[in-house]
Amino acid sequence: MKIEHWFSELQNEDVKLSVRIKSHVFSKESKYQRIDIFDTEFYGRIMVLDGCFMVTYKDEFMYQEMLAHPAMMSHDNPKNILIIGGGDGGIAREVLKYDVERVDLVEIDEDVINASKEYLPQTSVSFRDKRLNVYNQDAFDFVGGKRKYDVILVDSTDPVGFAASLFSDVFYMKAKESLEEGGIIATQSGSPFMNPDHIKKAIKGMKKYFKFIKPYVSFMPTYPSGMWSYVMASDKKIEMKREFTGKYMNSDIYEGSQKLPQFMKEIVD
Amino acid sequence: MKIEHWFSELQNEDVKLSVRIKSHVFSKESKYQRIDIFDTEFYGRIMVLDGCFMVTYKDEFMYQEMLAHPAMMSHDNPKNILIIGGGDGGIAREVLKYDVERVDLVEIDEDVINASKEYLPQTSVSFRDKRLNVYNQDAFDFVGGKRKYDVILVDSTDPVGFAASLFSDVFYMKAKESLEEGGIIATQSGSPFMNPDHIKKAIKGMKKYFKFIKPYVSFMPTYPSGMWSYVMASDKKIEMKREFTGKYMNSDIYEGSQKLPQFMKEIVD
Repeated sequence: MKIEHWFSELQNEDVKLSVRIKSHVFSKESKYQRIDIFDTEFYGRIMVLDGCFMVTYKDEFMYQEMLAHPAMMSHDNPKNILIIGGGDGGIAREVLKYDVERVDLVEIDEDVINASKEYLPQTSVSFRDKRLNVYNQDAFDFVGGKRKYDVILVDSTDPVGFAASLFSDVFYMKAKESLEEGGIIATQSGSPFMNPDHIKKAIKGMKKYFKFIKPYVSFMPTYPSGMWSYVMASDKKIEMKREFTGKYMNSDIYEGSQKLPQFMKEIVD
Repeated sequence: MKIEHWFSELQNEDVKLSVRIKSHVFSKESKYQRIDIFDTEFYGRIMVLDGCFMVTYKDEFMYQEMLAHPAMMSHDNPKNILIIGGGDGGIAREVLKYDVERVDLVEIDEDVINASKEYLPQTSVSFRDKRLNVYNQDAFDFVGGKRKYDVILVDSTDPVGFAASLFSDVFYMKAKESLEEGGIIATQSGSPFMNPDHIKKAIKGMKKYFKFIKPYVSFMPTYPSGMWSYVMASDKKIEMKREFTGKYMNSDIYEGSQKLPQFMKEIVD
């Protein structure tokens, strides 16, 4: 007899995505959240935080590339980078593909980093790079400090619970203080199809402190609805300054991801 | 006590998408497939064919608009349109928004049309339009007949079972015979993430008979992976000839949907 072994994420109360499991590799209740690592049949190894897909080996490139590269491609000369969250290391991995000097990663949950280092080598490879500095503290307190950055990337969980402050107006004010002149901030902003309030809130907060705002989208199969949004903001006009080709990103996608479906235009306008 | 009532589509053996059900409205084994209509909490009314999401009231606009409009927007003067499949009426609804003279819809399964007319009024509204003519026969036999069309839209189920012939090289040869000079054919071509062979096969068949091929993509949350692809083909260069704004489509999306992620470029090249 073969038993059925599935992990399911409730994307909301009424929709769930399930993946067939080979084995449950790791599980821990950290100070902040429940962390699970599974091996799955279709998506390969996956990391789940509080019951939500965060990383799968098969589709993580879509999210990681699309949060990291548009801002990096838009900056004249990105040397100092701040990553908020991103404890799996994937955003840092993408950023370190550029000729950067220093990457600071502020992840509140050390257990996420440790689990990623141990069980997600594909994603966490960046932690071996000497340019990367890890701070295990609340990013809300970290931003606005002495050090300034060319690019800030907000790779946080959703705006509920301990990550909620990372979508507040005050956070964007402090983030702006942490940016060099001409600096760019980019944040993930959820599914415009399932949670339109998430991107609305991000844009509203960013508009208070930045002159130029660029929402954009990518596919992301294991995130709710498969449609994911991001927002870049800067006081300098946001345009492509250099090319980058990855598994998802290329020069066409830089432009194409900013072309929004009509229902989303109406959300972000 | 509240019971849990879900419908789940197995997107492949190892991934499934589930939606919470309010009620099971209709069920029938037709000559060709099993037809189910549900009322769901999040997606509203849905139609399921052989266990696969075909139409949901909440996201059908994404698929219907993105199969119908790119070809319609690319033709100089689309007057006579052929729809292959499309028994729910949604593609016809979109096409009838243009100043067309005649729309022929060839749906093999009369029961799909009848269920849509009865239970999916939002989608099947087109069946009341006098410009629409319905043929209940195999589209493979219908194409290549006497009548010629400006635009052919292939809104079929996936290339297995009774719809497999609609993705064969011979079908594209016959479809070309059914096109007026400068005519355009567009087909849905599945998820490039989960089933890359589907779009590869469509492009390979189309390349034999058409000079210009344009693959493109859209979000579609209830279809496997949420990433859906389509291909347009013509002997005339495919460019936007007129604007159309819907709930998904706009002039930006016409361009943006043809900008492909790198992994998909490598599939279609």
